[in-house]
Amino acid sequence: MEPMKIYILGCGSAKPANGHLPSCQLLEARGKLFMIDCGEGAQMQWNRMGLGMTRLSHIFITHSHGDHCFGLPGLISTMGLLGRTADLHIHAPADLKPFIDCTLNLFCHEMGYNVIFHKVDCTANQLVHEDRSVEVWSIPLRHRMPCSGYLFKEKPTLPHIRPEMLECYNIPVSQANNIKAGMDWTTEDGEVIPNSRLTRPADKPRSYAYCSDTLYTPSIARMIEGCDVLYHEATFSDEFEVRAKQTCHSTARQAAMIAQKAKVKKLVIGHYSGRIKDIESHLGEAREVFLDTIASEEGLILDFDTVVKK
Amino acid sequence: MEPMKIYILGCGSAKPANGHLPSCQLLEARGKLFMIDCGEGAQMQWNRMGLGMTRLSHIFITHSHGDHCFGLPGLISTMGLLGRTADLHIHAPADLKPFIDCTLNLFCHEMGYNVIFHKVDCTANQLVHEDRSVEVWSIPLRHRMPCSGYLFKEKPTLPHIRPEMLECYNIPVSQANNIKAGMDWTTEDGEVIPNSRLTRPADKPRSYAYCSDTLYTPSIARMIEGCDVLYHEATFSDEFEVRAKQTCHSTARQAAMIAQKAKVKKLVIGHYSGRIKDIESHLGEAREVFLDTIASEEGLILDFDTVVKK
Repeated sequence: MEPMKIYILGCGSAKPANGHLPSCQLLEARGKLFMIDCGEGAQMQWNRMGLGMTRLSHIFITHSHGDHCFGLPGLISTMGLLGRTADLHIHAPADLKPFIDCTLNLFCHEMGYNVIFHKVDCTANQLVHEDRSVEVWSIPLRHRMPCSGYLFKEKPTLPHIRPEMLECYNIPVSQANNIKAGMDWTTEDGEVIPNSRLTRPADKPRSYAYCSDTLYTPSIARMIEGCDVLYHEATFSDEFEVRAKQTCHSTARQAAMIAQKAKVKKLVIGHYSGRIKDIESHLGEAREVFLDTIASEEGLILDFDTVVKK
Repeated sequence: MEPMKIYILGCGSAKPANGHLPSCQLLEARGKLFMIDCGEGAQMQWNRMGLGMTRLSHIFITHSHGDHCFGLPGLISTMGLLGRTADLHIHAPADLKPFIDCTLNLFCHEMGYNVIFHKVDCTANQLVHEDRSVEVWSIPLRHRMPCSGYLFKEKPTLPHIRPEMLECYNIPVSQANNIKAGMDWTTEDGEVIPNSRLTRPADKPRSYAYCSDTLYTPSIARMIEGCDVLYHEATFSDEFEVRAKQTCHSTARQAAMIAQKAKVKKLVIGHYSGRIKDIESHLGEAREVFLDTIASEEGLILDFDTVVKK
């Protein structure tokens, strides 16, 4: 099974504080990298983490607050300097487009690749992107401006061949694809070997939901139900619950309530306000509701194989 | 004497490499902070260094390459979030203005302060800003686009009062300003005490020149002659001298040649290409020409009192 990993590049909020960087993550799924939000400093943090940029073709931006998109001009320019030729797709609410246009018009005249903007409807829970192995769905969030979360779902794969069984029944390798596709095998003696004996079940598709920034919104639970890992913003602690509501953000406890309601396997919290100085205590408030919670931090890599219970 | 200090926030070049951040410095002079260039990540690095933002009113940008200005949207926005009300002045070549306009139009609707853009003529060596205690001059540089360096000069101050002499001659404190301004003192007996006995000479005004990005250009030496500290870009090492010329950059050795020609007291090199992995060897190439050279690094604070020989 190909690895599925989340790389936390930044998990702070709007104002720099406590050493955090603004929102940015990379999701590795089926051999590709997807970027989610692109706060200032994303390209430097990416470089520090030693990751290559060539596997990235799609960036998903939740909304047009600076701490979620001010890393784009630098990232787009640097990819140009590195000689990129492949298209780069940016999926975001419509109000981000003028910022991309401005960046391209002012700084990217000689760039060898195209940036293609895809408008995301922040009111709909719908498919916004798919390729051969991954689907991405929008999740309407409630913030002070149009804002969309994203759900990444691996597409189902075919069952695994059992090589020892192919050998046992002397089945030619050329038949492997047919058998993966479900074909039974008939031996020279006319015996029918059912497909289930020749294959192991396919891996269970995994899923990752990213919900930031948002007012506590229980209705999103049904859109992310049962997903493996949920990243949910937890800007404030209980103490600032009123301020969370006023600014259309969530508390750590509210993030945990969404995780519980949606029956996800693991919750990751982040988007910390500068007021959150004690992450352990913040995490504790979430864990009172949903024990399987992790606090994100810059540089953290979450491998689905190890963080998600089978 | 009020401290004069340079804070190195970033000294890398266009592509993130070797942990460097793109160009950004703060100059503390006469109690004020001036920012020079504002590469991506400037506000986070500023926060990390524990400096307040209120003393900054003037930002000087050398040119409109992203690694010198992509920190502006975040910095401008954050100052708004922090409740700034004082005007912020940005001095830069004219081609930066659309980027500032775009930032303000898209992200700064509810901001409580004004950003005022001042166009710098990149072909002239002239006064671009002055206040009661500091002058800032443009230095025409040769790069792939309009580009200006900056020379910061303290204005001369008045001599220092010698309090023990005022006491000795029973001179009222109300006369201190007149004596600072050069007045002699006549005692009740009619004796004239010359001003030189009542005062110590004024501090020598200090100066700081910032030259980045630029092709090796000996003619700038006369514009920065005798300045205390010169920051000069040293993008490449000797090995890449041809590439330096092609891309309108300088080598460490060429930076040192400018320092030598201009008879500055201290040279600081930076704007390192990603190819410069061994800073000590890079510094060595500069020191072969100009011994009083320092290699900049992120987080470095240079105090003129200690780095400049009296």
